[in-house]
Amino acid sequence: MRISSPEALDLAALLLRQRGVPPAHADLQAAVLVGAERKGHPSHGLQRLPRLLLRIERGLIDPAAEGAFVWRAAAFLSGDGENGLGPVVGEKAIGLLAERIGETGIAVAAVRNANHLGMLAHYVETIAAHGCIGLALSSSEALVHPHGGTRALLGTNPVAVAVPVADAPPFVVDLATSVVSMGKVHHYAATGAPLEPGWAKDADGRPTTDATQAKAGAIAPFGGAKGYALGLAFELLVAALADSVLAPDVAGTLDAERPCNKGDVFIMIDAARSPGVAQRLAAYLDVLRASPPETAGVPVSVPGDGARRRAERADQDGFEIAPALLATLHDLSRAGCPA
Amino acid sequence: MRISSPEALDLAALLLRQRGVPPAHADLQAAVLVGAERKGHPSHGLQRLPRLLLRIERGLIDPAAEGAFVWRAAAFLSGDGENGLGPVVGEKAIGLLAERIGETGIAVAAVRNANHLGMLAHYVETIAAHGCIGLALSSSEALVHPHGGTRALLGTNPVAVAVPVADAPPFVVDLATSVVSMGKVHHYAATGAPLEPGWAKDADGRPTTDATQAKAGAIAPFGGAKGYALGLAFELLVAALADSVLAPDVAGTLDAERPCNKGDVFIMIDAARSPGVAQRLAAYLDVLRASPPETAGVPVSVPGDGARRRAERADQDGFEIAPALLATLHDLSRAGCPA
Repeated sequence: MRISSPEALDLAALLLRQRGVPPAHADLQAAVLVGAERKGHPSHGLQRLPRLLLRIERGLIDPAAEGAFVWRAAAFLSGDGENGLGPVVGEKAIGLLAERIGETGIAVAAVRNANHLGMLAHYVETIAAHGCIGLALSSSEALVHPHGGTRALLGTNPVAVAVPVADAPPFVVDLATSVVSMGKVHHYAATGAPLEPGWAKDADGRPTTDATQAKAGAIAPFGGAKGYALGLAFELLVAALADSVLAPDVAGTLDAERPCNKGDVFIMIDAARSPGVAQRLAAYLDVLRASPPETAGVPVSVPGDGARRRAERADQDGFEIAPALLATLHDLSRAGCPA
Repeated sequence: MRISSPEALDLAALLLRQRGVPPAHADLQAAVLVGAERKGHPSHGLQRLPRLLLRIERGLIDPAAEGAFVWRAAAFLSGDGENGLGPVVGEKAIGLLAERIGETGIAVAAVRNANHLGMLAHYVETIAAHGCIGLALSSSEALVHPHGGTRALLGTNPVAVAVPVADAPPFVVDLATSVVSMGKVHHYAATGAPLEPGWAKDADGRPTTDATQAKAGAIAPFGGAKGYALGLAFELLVAALADSVLAPDVAGTLDAERPCNKGDVFIMIDAARSPGVAQRLAAYLDVLRASPPETAGVPVSVPGDGARRRAERADQDGFEIAPALLATLHDLSRAGCPA
């Protein structure tokens, strides 16, 4: 069944306000969840809301917290998220970077103890809206096995990059360094569909295409040894900058039992000031789009184009939501806050 | 046939000095080329030297130049490489970043018009030797097709990351975002071995396993859509920061006819100051190494371990060099500089 974006935003914000989330924080958290739905990534959308509400009710999320930040050096912002909502702490960090970027040209924020950020694209788009290049990295629970290994020891270690281009929305990449998300594995398990070979191992480390077995096992890194190497580099980078724990000790992005102790890193860079650069990038992306495709009728795509098209469509026609999820959200809304 | 590292260093430095390269620059360029050989990456080693010498003789490389740098902002160093040797300009940039890092915590250098850097690992290792996290990116000629496309429009867009860890050499990743290097394709063509399916397209954009056909065509990005997305993000990042051209307009890293106009980006970041972090990272890497492997007897590897083992072995026993290449280098040495 379909729901319009404004209706989804109102419902999500209401649910959050009912549990004591300040209105501005509720609107931001709702916008990040609905933004993922609009872009066609329901794994980072409203299905995360019931657990998020439960975490608030249990005191695992402090909905008023915005994080405590200190400039460790002129361009290095260090933050403790103080169990705040991920988007609230993330946006606060980026706002502080934006105040400094004119002076330093590049600045980094490293944050620990904030809750789940949702889709990283949101944050690099915020940075790009300042005319800057944005990078975002975040750590997570151990779900991914090393290349040549069998045990879930790495996070999905997502990365997002945005680069402003002329006369168009920014170029945006947002991807996990796992071959597939654990959300997708759960979706396959729910529908009984087999996974593709090579995607996962079971709890004993054996290759499996059974999604139910894979849920207790590990997902492969994307792109073999190279994807493993990059994902591991991002994992170490986040822990080293945020002083946060490594994947096997991360909790709180998926459960409703433990505080969230992962790390987040945001890097903001002033792009080259030569006026020609943004035009050059835009023209180059158009050359890619117009280049001969591998399959006739399937044009070469630039990362982010698909998400943008889906979001535009969602703004016209709304987006699909599972009836059971919508019913749960309405029930939670009628119940108000049990606390 | 084998050559010792000191012998190779002496020969390479002599060849460079014979062509007017200042001794310190010659030693550094030789160390970067021989370093790649020691790590087992001859594609970035001495086989590049004859062309490099030719570029010096033709005035395409200014062997005395160290680049002209300006701090565009407190933590943003902008450089024109002035056709200098890649390692000379790169090390100069990193030295300037190192002077600033205590004040700013993060700093970036974006450089255009320097010659080929060689293996990026060298530069992030230099940064790690300052106790900092290093990232290096460099652009290149168009050799890689977009995912879903057929034409060589992207560079191989290599990336290197180093993260210091306690009581051990730093963690180092250095990889191209192509599934295979063009150097390897040339090697397959020379030996007549077939490429793996999916690695390359021919000049007409058709899939090919014929390395000779692939040389005139395009290599695939690694890891499908995700690797394409990351490689493209790096490509845009370098051009946007260095104000350099995009891959289709890059020249001078492979030929001996044109000035080198690609871009290089170095990022230096002060790691977390909590004393526990470097220990935590080292312990985590050991957990990965000791984890159950996919194939019995083939331990899980951490990126950089193999290169380090090969370098240690080379320091004991020397490394393999093709007799024809060694003969060419000796001939060039006897000839001195024709200019």
